Amino acid sequence: MLASIHSPEDLKKLPAEQLPQLAEALRKRIIDVTSKNGGHVGPNLGVVELSIALHRVFSTPKDSIIFDVSHQCYAHKLLTGRNGEAFNRLRKTDGFSGFCSRKESAHDAFGSGHAGTAISAALGIAAARDLAGGDEHVIAVVGDAAITNGATLEALNNIASHTKRLIVVLNDNEWSIDRNVGAVADYLNKLITTPVYNEATRGVRRFLEKIPGGAHLIRAGSAWKQEKKNVLSSGSSPLFENFKLRYLGPIDGHDIAQLISYLEFAKKSDRPILLHVRTTKGKGFSPAIENPEKFHGCAPFNPENGELCLSQKKAPAWQEAFGETLVKLAREDKKILGITAAMPAGTSLNLLKKALPEQYFDVGIAEGHAVIFAAGLACKGFKPCVAIYSSFLQRAVDMVMHDVCLQNLPVVFCLDRAGLSPQDGATHHGLYDMAMLRTLPNITIMQPKDEDELADMMATAFDLGKPAVIRYPRGAAVGVPVKEKPALLPVGKAEVLKEGTDDGAVCLWSLGGVTLPLAEVLAKRLEAECGKAPTLVNARFCKPLDRELLAEQAKRAKLFVTFENHTVVGGFGSAVLETLSEIGAEVPVERIGWPDAFVAHGTNPADLRERYALSDEAIAERVLARIRKLKS
Amino acid sequence: MLASIHSPEDLKKLPAEQLPQLAEALRKRIIDVTSKNGGHVGPNLGVVELSIALHRVFSTPKDSIIFDVSHQCYAHKLLTGRNGEAFNRLRKTDGFSGFCSRKESAHDAFGSGHAGTAISAALGIAAARDLAGGDEHVIAVVGDAAITNGATLEALNNIASHTKRLIVVLNDNEWSIDRNVGAVADYLNKLITTPVYNEATRGVRRFLEKIPGGAHLIRAGSAWKQEKKNVLSSGSSPLFENFKLRYLGPIDGHDIAQLISYLEFAKKSDRPILLHVRTTKGKGFSPAIENPEKFHGCAPFNPENGELCLSQKKAPAWQEAFGETLVKLAREDKKILGITAAMPAGTSLNLLKKALPEQYFDVGIAEGHAVIFAAGLACKGFKPCVAIYSSFLQRAVDMVMHDVCLQNLPVVFCLDRAGLSPQDGATHHGLYDMAMLRTLPNITIMQPKDEDELADMMATAFDLGKPAVIRYPRGAAVGVPVKEKPALLPVGKAEVLKEGTDDGAVCLWSLGGVTLPLAEVLAKRLEAECGKAPTLVNARFCKPLDRELLAEQAKRAKLFVTFENHTVVGGFGSAVLETLSEIGAEVPVERIGWPDAFVAHGTNPADLRERYALSDEAIAERVLARIRKLKS
Repeated sequence: MLASIHSPEDLKKLPAEQLPQLAEALRKRIIDVTSKNGGHVGPNLGVVELSIALHRVFSTPKDSIIFDVSHQCYAHKLLTGRNGEAFNRLRKTDGFSGFCSRKESAHDAFGSGHAGTAISAALGIAAARDLAGGDEHVIAVVGDAAITNGATLEALNNIASHTKRLIVVLNDNEWSIDRNVGAVADYLNKLITTPVYNEATRGVRRFLEKIPGGAHLIRAGSAWKQEKKNVLSSGSSPLFENFKLRYLGPIDGHDIAQLISYLEFAKKSDRPILLHVRTTKGKGFSPAIENPEKFHGCAPFNPENGELCLSQKKAPAWQEAFGETLVKLAREDKKILGITAAMPAGTSLNLLKKALPEQYFDVGIAEGHAVIFAAGLACKGFKPCVAIYSSFLQRAVDMVMHDVCLQNLPVVFCLDRAGLSPQDGATHHGLYDMAMLRTLPNITIMQPKDEDELADMMATAFDLGKPAVIRYPRGAAVGVPVKEKPALLPVGKAEVLKEGTDDGAVCLWSLGGVTLPLAEVLAKRLEAECGKAPTLVNARFCKPLDRELLAEQAKRAKLFVTFENHTVVGGFGSAVLETLSEIGAEVPVERIGWPDAFVAHGTNPADLRERYALSDEAIAERVLARIRKLKS
Repeated sequence: MLASIHSPEDLKKLPAEQLPQLAEALRKRIIDVTSKNGGHVGPNLGVVELSIALHRVFSTPKDSIIFDVSHQCYAHKLLTGRNGEAFNRLRKTDGFSGFCSRKESAHDAFGSGHAGTAISAALGIAAARDLAGGDEHVIAVVGDAAITNGATLEALNNIASHTKRLIVVLNDNEWSIDRNVGAVADYLNKLITTPVYNEATRGVRRFLEKIPGGAHLIRAGSAWKQEKKNVLSSGSSPLFENFKLRYLGPIDGHDIAQLISYLEFAKKSDRPILLHVRTTKGKGFSPAIENPEKFHGCAPFNPENGELCLSQKKAPAWQEAFGETLVKLAREDKKILGITAAMPAGTSLNLLKKALPEQYFDVGIAEGHAVIFAAGLACKGFKPCVAIYSSFLQRAVDMVMHDVCLQNLPVVFCLDRAGLSPQDGATHHGLYDMAMLRTLPNITIMQPKDEDELADMMATAFDLGKPAVIRYPRGAAVGVPVKEKPALLPVGKAEVLKEGTDDGAVCLWSLGGVTLPLAEVLAKRLEAECGKAPTLVNARFCKPLDRELLAEQAKRAKLFVTFENHTVVGGFGSAVLETLSEIGAEVPVERIGWPDAFVAHGTNPADLRERYALSDEAIAERVLARIRKLKS
């Protein structure tokens, strides 16, 4: 059946009674592909009926449906002409993105990847429509976790000032990646459990009587009412009414007919309206329902029983090493606290949550607040550690600056996913943090070569008494044993791993565990080609950089090669350039890192390195060419 | 009387009936100093009584009072031992800061400068207190404009999860810098005009009966009630109750006795509480009441009549030139829109508001939303211009990246105050934008040498069809005439202002109108010292940099000197270093810019340049030393 749907127009032609069947087909396809490719299983299974209802009622690309975060876009993609080979390769090199993307399809009205942007974007699109005198519909689909993000709340406050026609669908499944926290989550839960107010329902009916087509809807509603409960009934929500939104709900998010009737109503609303839709994360696949956190975003799995098909584990992941060390350090020092913005599992802060719950805080998807909150804790002598993905910290750059660095407070930032998040792509790669952060005074930035050094850096950071950042990548660490008691590292000092045999002519400076193997491969290659081995340095610190070592080496060096798992624009290599320039040592520097372009999603890091000219071979060619040029 | 107050302890000893007199003395002192130094007149006059009441009821530094933005801290400073010579020099070199600062006094529990951080910080401090088992009080004082900032709203959602004891004082004066916008502003206004609910008042009484000391408060309240109306009465606020805050208010913010009674009540509350305090911006100084926008933050003025003592105007300010050109361009192209985050006057977007109101949007203090909203407008073919201070755009770095650059949408960012905001200091200087933004793919960054080139850059940016940033400083522009029709500049091309007579040995690259005079002075000095003039380049573009010109000059150059009104860490000079390195031209570069340190406040740019080794003399010495070193 799915094969016959090439566009939303085809969907509209299907008899209504076949829609539940279509939902089953979509679920099957989603499970089929995600079981092979991994992906956001739970969120997508939860919105299958909602996606059908949206495309039944609205007409993209004329109408704009904006998915918040947009990891829940798989059914939408399948319904908008993307059920082909590229969907088989979802999240893989040259396959479709796991998120909405304006480049990929006109049906994707707005791309996203971080939470909280949909209502702002929808409001911009709606205001543009109003200015142009258009009649298109604009719908923002927002999860209950993202509704409390600062950007969403700022947008909510602005809706009524800027348009009369905007539809917000609140997709309420009680989960972000973890179970939701905070006052609004409790509030939504109360809305669900409080009996429907008939007064409000009558309000809806009175409203319907006044609008064109409303009488038809009432008749339809009455007819349905005979068969179904609660059609076009609604509770009331002071919270959303305070934001001047008409509130309708709660609505069963898996009842397509009910969804359609509410969306048809919303389509005609003469003021901004919020539909509160209840969905079940993982709906239709019991392993995902039972383990919503595991199946939020996951690796390939067995579609029969939901068991993850984990590849042979080379080593624990960096984040596990981080989580275990944090627990160890926090046991010994009760001043150490862990803070996550709704990512306990992703960051491994769940280990702290389990071991030392009183030293653990989850603030929800609220990165800015997380950082200021940490600064407040630090004011009173605590040592907070904000564990956060590199790309999500971009949300809080101003807070890192003002609340932490300017006040020189001892907050430790542990930046997970610093580097690639291959299958997620451009919105999730952590390739910009050093450029954004190293410009800030008072900050120390480190990256470890292995999990033992990660532990040392964590101990060093907590000992530092001022702002510190430790960045490490997604995926398996190196696999070295972590010593019992971490050592304090000398701040701003690099480690010479291997003195060269070329009298220091070529010095390789690597920052972190992902690039060290690249540097080692290059070192061997250079030795093979030139007969002499270069010097190999583990930089450890991006800031402060080891100026003394650089100055010493610069006396004899003919070439520095820097390696970073980060963009080359403004990153570690640029810090080396700046320092050499300040020393007055004009030694050539070849900077190896990601280029000045948004890096796409891809099957794995090797694929992406190949594509962006960072394979071992490409690096060796570049460096050898540079050396030849120097000699000529 | 004020002279006898050396600490909050002295304040506590004053007889209650003398407090209104003290308020008068504080007002006089504030008007006296701000009339000479400039400053945030209106906000400070509005919270005189509130500051007295806070320090009468609470005991800093044991208790923590956290002022949001903290530009309303003058009375607080005067009451906490800072009524000396350094207060005379408020906002000037070596005087007290116009904001709270942990470095300045233990009574400043948390420093700030940007809106929306107080509740997050207070919550961190309260959580720390709870962990440590302390009994201190934590009070966040937040304006009604900042209550709708994303950071505030994220914090509101988290209060109840993290503490039972936190006091939020909502200082409601209906203004940010401009009159407030948005649903919550309307909501607060409705709270004010809706009659008090007795039911809620009874709730307060019932609560009082249960707590220790409550009976006393009721008796006191009853006694007061005979004399005053509405003591300990309250309306109700579903909005704040939804955030699980007890709501009390509205309260007359200029009635010290009433404020004290409510604060005493709040002190004993067993759950987080919000006091809704109504104040009048500029209270006690009629020119400030009548012109709240002008007296939000202002230049020195005549304390008799409020007339601004403007120095002889050299030229229109950069932002006026921006505002006038925007109106001109927006008249011709209806697709051009202006967006401000509560800064119409500061950015001069009020010119657009007046001339073309339908092409103007004020979204309130909501920088993140402003950028996403602009991206939404751009999706539908509009050409939005986000006019924002450089330091405030730091709040929206992730949005500039994800919502604008990643989607390659034609949003134009006009960054005012890019450079120094001398008297405001570290929180307001715009010295980091290029480092944070030039790392983003797809972005174009420019800075004009004068107001005519600013107009050309604006026309170029709107013509570009992709993300563009134009940065310009605070203060007077150059004073050149702006031609009638702006020209489109060749993108990524610098302008050679003067070919050197030294065969290209020294090339000065200046970015922008503030640094060009520095470069010109240096050029003359070099000519005088070396007998030959260097080449002088107006860079225009930080990204894309003029690689061809650099490569051409690098063939003969012995030294490049870069000038930027920005930190040297990761900024324009670093972009030049990167480009030269990529070209394979290892020519020395002397980078002139602000150092890797937070730049303090100061009387004027010249003072700060002197202090941070950026005077003409200091620059010449550095460059001459470099030249001597090259020759040796």
